[in-house]
Amino acid sequence: SSDPDPLQDFCVADLTASPSVNGFPCKAASAVTAHDFSSAALSGKGNTSNAFGSKVTAANVLAFPALNTLGVSMNRVDLAEGGLNPPHTHPRASELDIVLKGKVLIGFITTGNVYYSKVLTRGELFVIPRGLVHFQRNVGKGDALIITSFNSQLPGAAVLPTTLFSAKP
Amino acid sequence: SSDPDPLQDFCVADLTASPSVNGFPCKAASAVTAHDFSSAALSGKGNTSNAFGSKVTAANVLAFPALNTLGVSMNRVDLAEGGLNPPHTHPRASELDIVLKGKVLIGFITTGNVYYSKVLTRGELFVIPRGLVHFQRNVGKGDALIITSFNSQLPGAAVLPTTLFSAKP
Amino acid sequence: SSDPDPLQDFCVADLTASPSVNGFPCKAASAVTAHDFSSAALSGKGNTSNAFGSKVTAANVLAFPALNTLGVSMNRVDLAEGGLNPPHTHPRASELDIVLKGKVLIGFITTGNVYYSKVLTRGELFVIPRGLVHFQRNVGKGDALIITSFNSQLPGAAVLPTTLFSAKP
Amino acid sequence: SSDPDPLQDFCVADLTASPSVNGFPCKAASAVTAHDFSSAALSGKGNTSNAFGSKVTAANVLAFPALNTLGVSMNRVDLAEGGLNPPHTHPRASELDIVLKGKVLIGFITTGNVYYSKVLTRGELFVIPRGLVHFQRNVGKGDALIITSFNSQLPGAAVLPTTLFSAKP
Amino acid sequence: SSDPDPLQDFCVADLTASPSVNGFPCKAASAVTAHDFSSAALSGKGNTSNAFGSKVTAANVLAFPALNTLGVSMNRVDLAEGGLNPPHTHPRASELDIVLKGKVLIGFITTGNVYYSKVLTRGELFVIPRGLVHFQRNVGKGDALIITSFNSQLPGAAVLPTTLFSAKP
Amino acid sequence: SSDPDPLQDFCVADLTASPSVNGFPCKAASAVTAHDFSSAALSGKGNTSNAFGSKVTAANVLAFPALNTLGVSMNRVDLAEGGLNPPHTHPRASELDIVLKGKVLIGFITTGNVYYSKVLTRGELFVIPRGLVHFQRNVGKGDALIITSFNSQLPGAAVLPTTLFSAKP
Repeated sequence: SSDPDPLQDFCVADLTASPSVNGFPCKAASAVTAHDFSSAALSGKGNTSNAFGSKVTAANVLAFPALNTLGVSMNRVDLAEGGLNPPHTHPRASELDIVLKGKVLIGFITTGNVYYSKVLTRGELFVIPRGLVHFQRNVGKGDALIITSFNSQLPGAAVLPTTLFSAKP
Repeated sequence: SSDPDPLQDFCVADLTASPSVNGFPCKAASAVTAHDFSSAALSGKGNTSNAFGSKVTAANVLAFPALNTLGVSMNRVDLAEGGLNPPHTHPRASELDIVLKGKVLIGFITTGNVYYSKVLTRGELFVIPRGLVHFQRNVGKGDALIITSFNSQLPGAAVLPTTLFSAKP
Repeated sequence: SSDPDPLQDFCVADLTASPSVNGFPCKAASAVTAHDFSSAALSGKGNTSNAFGSKVTAANVLAFPALNTLGVSMNRVDLAEGGLNPPHTHPRASELDIVLKGKVLIGFITTGNVYYSKVLTRGELFVIPRGLVHFQRNVGKGDALIITSFNSQLPGAAVLPTTLFSAKP
Repeated sequence: SSDPDPLQDFCVADLTASPSVNGFPCKAASAVTAHDFSSAALSGKGNTSNAFGSKVTAANVLAFPALNTLGVSMNRVDLAEGGLNPPHTHPRASELDIVLKGKVLIGFITTGNVYYSKVLTRGELFVIPRGLVHFQRNVGKGDALIITSFNSQLPGAAVLPTTLFSAKP
Repeated sequence: SSDPDPLQDFCVADLTASPSVNGFPCKAASAVTAHDFSSAALSGKGNTSNAFGSKVTAANVLAFPALNTLGVSMNRVDLAEGGLNPPHTHPRASELDIVLKGKVLIGFITTGNVYYSKVLTRGELFVIPRGLVHFQRNVGKGDALIITSFNSQLPGAAVLPTTLFSAKP
Repeated sequence: SSDPDPLQDFCVADLTASPSVNGFPCKAASAVTAHDFSSAALSGKGNTSNAFGSKVTAANVLAFPALNTLGVSMNRVDLAEGGLNPPHTHPRASELDIVLKGKVLIGFITTGNVYYSKVLTRGELFVIPRGLVHFQRNVGKGDALIITSFNSQLPGAAVLPTTLFSAKP
């Protein structure tokens, strides 16, 4: 990944420290406990009652401050039957997905406009190269669940339908 | 940028060497001359007689092999009156633009869906953070010309209209 | 992470190409299909019938060649009741764990000899800073399963008991 | 380039924030406007009425704070007839030049003391590998103008005549 | 190495500035003198009167603040006759050793459990790949002295006997 | 340093493999022995019978192929009484020096033309930020010896007097 490497064992983010810097300043090491290194951010099922039938829940540095400087994060993607996580890119990370439930079509498009996709079932993996447009669609019966892992603590996401039609002027 | 740094003074790409590697293998140093380090790839005006009224001409490592391992490249963007370089992202680079001719609206959208844009004239600069969706539109009279520079020898481009509607299955 | 960034959309590893390089040479792009980007390496339960009652199954670049240049990988860690994934370090990556089944104690030791640990249950996350000694132990009833993700395509592992007592001279 | 990658969409430099850090702290995102992402730093012709008949005007992070964390910058090099931008190195960047006006001799010297040079005219490019000694000389009639782009927001410059003869003790 | 590259000529660490960041904030440039760039941290012989008959003295960023952002550091390893610098890893650096005095056995173990070792005498070098378990033992007559250099300003060390038996709970 | 990080435990350079790449291809792991990881390149005193009264002997990847991908190297600088290692820059590394013998003046010049220097004796350290012009001069009685370490396996050197007056056209 591209996140700059850590220069000490850890630097748990202090999300409100001033001034802000590239990434985040560190919470005082003396205030860090084992609880900082764990998170329940992905424990609950996301609410898929929306137009896309999908919900992305992020465990990035904003939700899990211990990820600061460590260059890793995870999302859970809940998909109702037929649900779609619409085309998007992550500006700062590659992505490795594991399907935990259901039958999911995952695809990406290269900068040369070649489309690669595959239907995956429980336990199968799919990798999306850094910065490429991709999506996930539930093509099976019932709910589906994917864990997506990233080589950045804050990969970001540019969701194409949102970006094209609803950006704030 | 994210391009891995050079491990020698230069490594002019041998675009056809086998096996291929991350980036490109190097042409034998003994075969390298001063001509390798220059390029006329951006000397000619791009043909803007198309639906978008725009043409991007690239001087990336594919067009200018000496850029290999050096982490820099440039494009020229020619825009007819009213022409648009449609929304796209560069998966592997930030971009710094200089307007050489005309009056151009340049804008980008953050991952939080905030839209920043500005009308620029000759000699003015605009920077587009890595991986974000952006576009350029000629909003003046007559042709416009922009030079865009990148901190990658092959930034790539995912053009949204193309990506959404015409990828090869 | 520290893996050098990709210089093209993808470079699926050709594990047997010669000469070898830092990472791996790329399979010809024309031979790459959607199947390359998926893997079933983690689909099956690992056999925990061994002295430690644990089994690590790796989906790194050696098992899943498309990860080459992309800087991500995953392992599954199966733990029988009471099983231990013994103390080890990953020389080239930070690690983010998600517990998929059971009750697991995860801990690491800093370079200043401070020990951080926590008992986790299904859906909970734990992060292990790059290069630090850590372990996972099943402290619940029945089997446990953890997915560990890394910001390197080949994080490596130095397993301390093995390293100290059984290295080949 | 070698600049550490951005860990958020942008971090416009606050040049006076305290304490200083590697690079610069970020201006509060709420205070950032579209104006921050543009700059007129290179709009005006540099004054070449000096011993070298040349003037370098920089649009680096000090002049254009939005470049902070983005790893790109540009200079304009104005050269009077016969003017010379004397031998110098950039400690932290490769450089890609485009000639916008005139006829210019550009050359660099490798660490093995091989000299590569070429005369360039309008629209032509020349690349200077990171850290190598190079110069630009106007060898045509009238003024010349070059835009130089870098893969660092603050490439720095060690100008050899200045360095050798006029450093402050 | 993996330390993020410097974004200015230097950033001498202010070890007590608040808030802390990845690495350290910079001392004001106006307060920096030539003395900051030198250190006597390794001038004195380490006291080897202990169970291992060895003493590591570090000139890392904590002892020599000018190393901040520069990605280099050194240790001296004093070994009494028969003394051992016990098995350890550096989570954030490769190591290059030069023997200045005595006869020393240096060895490391790969992640594939292959053991490489060699007896070295004055002036000889040995390199230890990043993150691998290694040790140094004095196998000659009298004292021995090794200088170890790193491509990180704070490589850290996980000492295995200490880690396994004496971490603070 | 900026050298891209290793993607496996080691990749001993095969200096003559074809095609060449950024850095070097790897010797087959099966052919690697413990001898590869050691070197006597710096064991002998350099011949200082020349105009400068100095001799730099390098243990970089060309002399010590195991350094490939590991991002570290060392030089020895022998200085006769009054000898000078003339002003030079290393385009790809910071440098950390330790004086092993004699009394030495070491200095560097920033990109802002500030000069920092200090006289050092046995055991003292001096750090030279990446890419800056620096020199070493023996200002004591008798010979002097310095070990210089770098965070690159091939830092390169642009020696200013040589560069300015004797480059091959």
